[in-house]
Amino acid sequence: MKHSLLCLALLAALSATTGAEAIRSEPVTPLAAPEVIDAGKAELGKKLFFDPRLSRSGFISCNSCHNLSMGGSDNLRTSIGHNWQQGPINSPTVLNSSLSVAQFWDGRAANLQEQAGGPIANPGEMASTHVLAVDVVHSIPGYVDEFQSVFGSGEVSIERMTAAIAEFEKTLVTPGSRFDQWLLGDDGALSEQELAGYTLFKQSGCVACHNGAALGGNSFQRMGVVEPYQTDNPAVGRAGVTGKDADRFTFKVPTLRNIELTYPYFHDGAAETLEEAVQLMGRLQLGRTYSEKETADIVAFLHSLTGKQPDFKLPILPPSSNQTPAPEPFAKKS
Amino acid sequence: MKHSLLCLALLAALSATTGAEAIRSEPVTPLAAPEVIDAGKAELGKKLFFDPRLSRSGFISCNSCHNLSMGGSDNLRTSIGHNWQQGPINSPTVLNSSLSVAQFWDGRAANLQEQAGGPIANPGEMASTHVLAVDVVHSIPGYVDEFQSVFGSGEVSIERMTAAIAEFEKTLVTPGSRFDQWLLGDDGALSEQELAGYTLFKQSGCVACHNGAALGGNSFQRMGVVEPYQTDNPAVGRAGVTGKDADRFTFKVPTLRNIELTYPYFHDGAAETLEEAVQLMGRLQLGRTYSEKETADIVAFLHSLTGKQPDFKLPILPPSSNQTPAPEPFAKKS
Repeated sequence: MKHSLLCLALLAALSATTGAEAIRSEPVTPLAAPEVIDAGKAELGKKLFFDPRLSRSGFISCNSCHNLSMGGSDNLRTSIGHNWQQGPINSPTVLNSSLSVAQFWDGRAANLQEQAGGPIANPGEMASTHVLAVDVVHSIPGYVDEFQSVFGSGEVSIERMTAAIAEFEKTLVTPGSRFDQWLLGDDGALSEQELAGYTLFKQSGCVACHNGAALGGNSFQRMGVVEPYQTDNPAVGRAGVTGKDADRFTFKVPTLRNIELTYPYFHDGAAETLEEAVQLMGRLQLGRTYSEKETADIVAFLHSLTGKQPDFKLPILPPSSNQTPAPEPFAKKS
Repeated sequence: MKHSLLCLALLAALSATTGAEAIRSEPVTPLAAPEVIDAGKAELGKKLFFDPRLSRSGFISCNSCHNLSMGGSDNLRTSIGHNWQQGPINSPTVLNSSLSVAQFWDGRAANLQEQAGGPIANPGEMASTHVLAVDVVHSIPGYVDEFQSVFGSGEVSIERMTAAIAEFEKTLVTPGSRFDQWLLGDDGALSEQELAGYTLFKQSGCVACHNGAALGGNSFQRMGVVEPYQTDNPAVGRAGVTGKDADRFTFKVPTLRNIELTYPYFHDGAAETLEEAVQLMGRLQLGRTYSEKETADIVAFLHSLTGKQPDFKLPILPPSSNQTPAPEPFAKKS
């Protein structure tokens, strides 16, 4: 009986288009497999996502800092950019990013497509320009053929490139975590400790910000509500976008999906372990000191949020032509 | 009739263990799909190959410079190493490298396993140490489990790590090129121009060095036989290994398999196009000036050497633990 209920729930989840239908009524909802609108566009976007030729050096791809082998992040405090520049902020995971209210820690991009154009032209990241990146892609016959088949013409533009990358990123949803299995009705999917952790997570207030399908990503909140956050990271957060002083140190609440894979934590990457992150969040945001056992319970719950990771073949990129602008990895050093 | 012959040849190729049986008697032999001795070990090696945690920065993996999405190379003149150091030599493709007489341009590593340990500990490349790399892998429970299942114990050593990487690299053979189809009896696999290019490739002497299954990789030859090669690259080649003055500017002959994917060419990466590489090789090695048509014919033939590229799922790496030594991407800069 339990199994047939579960099967029904899973079928419902698979057929849903906007979300899986949970058996349980909780402030967290299960992830549903994404409905890909255009598989060909997503396939093209996957290639572009893995292509380091979108960077000036020919060395850095989207996947360099949003590594899909490692939870869609680079597992560094802050990222490495062109010429080994130290990035200003922790690279957020690309997994489930389609569920976010906006993109980047400060939400300065409205959607995935707008986001995708940023790092390509950021001198501290991929250090190319939109004009150069388009020239490169346009010079590669294998890409032009694919643009033709996806968009109906071989014209390459930054809008088309970022639309394809965004379409691919929409596929990067990670359903199937043990927590989602529990939400869908499988009582045995979570251990007692994990359930205790989830209960505490709700009761002590974490869920006020980390809720919804992504357990976060749907609001901006101040980092340091009860107590100010100590950091030497100069990021001002949402205030840089809105210009409002009230938004200083306000950041997009990060998703907790796959959180065991996306260390280190916070916008400055200062918390190396989940234990550290949970204790600091409790103190700074909720004015609460979690005991060692409470911390361990919440961390156990967080480990149940790891879903099905990207499951596709390594893309093979079409080769450059004699007309492709050569990468310039060392041009600015000599 | 032609098709049944082809089928027989293909069947023979598939069942062969050391090489495909060519119908034609040529100085080039077709590639056979590799016989993987230990699939579990190769799977572990694949993860390690893609894991940037083997580098000090946590940013550079084997796949960074031997990118399997791009012909097993980085398509840069010379590679980018730790702290954006400029590498001394062009990164050779890892595809079909198991067929080489030795590894590196100067053959200083006897085999793939010996090679794999080099870049990890090279301060200009991944800049880790064998001790640190072992510590990192040993701290990752998912890896220890896999070492247990592959090697019979969870002990992690640089020997085991490089043995696994080498096992994976042995799988990176690329059969199925149109040229191989032709060698196996399919008359229609090559165009007239490609055949003319191959004939010229043999008759003018290229095949003296670029022969065998990999069209190269099986001997060391002087770069600049008839005429000295002009380069500002300081590499002395084989002499650095043997200490013999006669070996100066002697390098391992690179494979021509998948050559359209592994630009730019030569040990210094100075030739950006195949046309440039063919003309320079003709002049320097054979004292021959190829006409534009001859060059185009040989280049057309070279394009027929692209085989089946790596065909596997993007590996998902096991996450670090709280005990994993943190990457140090910027330690030496501050």
